[in-house]
Amino acid sequence: MEGSIRVAHLTEVNEALKNLSQLFQSWREIRSIKDTFTETTRIIEQLLDYDMAVLYLLGEKGLCFIKTTGELEERELQTQKILNEKLFKNSSPLIYEAGFQESTISQQFDELQDIASVILIPLLNKKGLQGILACASKERHSFSSQELLITQIIADALNSRISILLYQEFLEQNNKELRSITKRMRHDFANDIQALALGMELLATTELNKEQKKYVEILDKSITSATKKLRELKELKKKVERDYQ
Amino acid sequence: MEGSIRVAHLTEVNEALKNLSQLFQSWREIRSIKDTFTETTRIIEQLLDYDMAVLYLLGEKGLCFIKTTGELEERELQTQKILNEKLFKNSSPLIYEAGFQESTISQQFDELQDIASVILIPLLNKKGLQGILACASKERHSFSSQELLITQIIADALNSRISILLYQEFLEQNNKELRSITKRMRHDFANDIQALALGMELLATTELNKEQKKYVEILDKSITSATKKLRELKELKKKVERDYQ
Repeated sequence: MEGSIRVAHLTEVNEALKNLSQLFQSWREIRSIKDTFTETTRIIEQLLDYDMAVLYLLGEKGLCFIKTTGELEERELQTQKILNEKLFKNSSPLIYEAGFQESTISQQFDELQDIASVILIPLLNKKGLQGILACASKERHSFSSQELLITQIIADALNSRISILLYQEFLEQNNKELRSITKRMRHDFANDIQALALGMELLATTELNKEQKKYVEILDKSITSATKKLRELKELKKKVERDYQ
Repeated sequence: MEGSIRVAHLTEVNEALKNLSQLFQSWREIRSIKDTFTETTRIIEQLLDYDMAVLYLLGEKGLCFIKTTGELEERELQTQKILNEKLFKNSSPLIYEAGFQESTISQQFDELQDIASVILIPLLNKKGLQGILACASKERHSFSSQELLITQIIADALNSRISILLYQEFLEQNNKELRSITKRMRHDFANDIQALALGMELLATTELNKEQKKYVEILDKSITSATKKLRELKELKKKVERDYQ
């Protein structure tokens, strides 16, 4: 009965449910994946008898968030290793109740050192694997059905939230680029239009025949129009930035 | 023992936990509050013995999502009534196990007609009340502690998600405005610069003295510079819109 050495603290279900409630409350005012995972591990620690929780986040830049004791650690990830194995092609968790270190896949998870037992839950979205949640124990550990269910609930909630946080990150990035384009544009055109206005002023001081006066009028009209648009643009930009606060 | 007439189906806790897991999975690929609540009520129906679920969403334009049988209904909301009462200033749910219709606050919830028992859970964020989740029964109903806990978990998860979905909505709106400004700007300046280039061409065909030629050169340089920037801008705009797909 090795597995029963470290039985989960999940003796009182209501207590577990209260902890889930707390978890979702803690997510309310935070916006980053790192903060979300920090709050999540705080609850995992209260709920389940694990020594280590790791969130693998795949994608363009792979990240890995590791929580043992103390602060949450963030690392860059060699994602290829995990992805190539196709270990997580369906949503079922991989469970090693003992001897994880002796398994063939353990070498793919550098972060899970000195681990005897682990639950690895794939975080899938419609594009495929977006990450893995790992809850690990240094000693041999037998996972109860409720322990598995609670871990699965946390993984599912985390997965939905990560999807939306990644989209939010993309929107913020896109937004930043657009604002920088708008700013640069206004600045650049302002310089050209100022130079044009100056050139026109100088030209107007010279002797001009009837034909030339007509052409200068055309030029003048366009410059006035462009200047007006620059002013409008400045107002619009101010408005959008005010909204953004 | 009126309350026991309709006992919640929550006999098997593991079943409830599996349903929560399903709920968070269902949120994974959806982005709107309405779709989120549709999926949520699907799970509420499986988990709990309510006849009606209502999500009140306060804010600039108050909304109300009502689910009885069939499709989810969306209505505009008279938010002032609920807000003024300050009934939901702390996070504890208001529970009416019987006789909700006879209560003084029932008249503030037009949607909860023919309701005998109800749980009203405030959805709070740091700015205050952002909404209310109501789970209601037409008959007198006694809520079990686990029923309350499950409803609270769903409300807390829903609340965190709504916060982030509202922020996402704002980002999308802001983004849309910025793209429209960029587009309008490019279009407007293109017209002016085209007119300027034309005026310059015509002016160049006339007899110009040395001084005038110098000024025309200044003007020409600025127009060339502005035209180049317009081209760059077009490329940038294309890039951002490609990213956005």
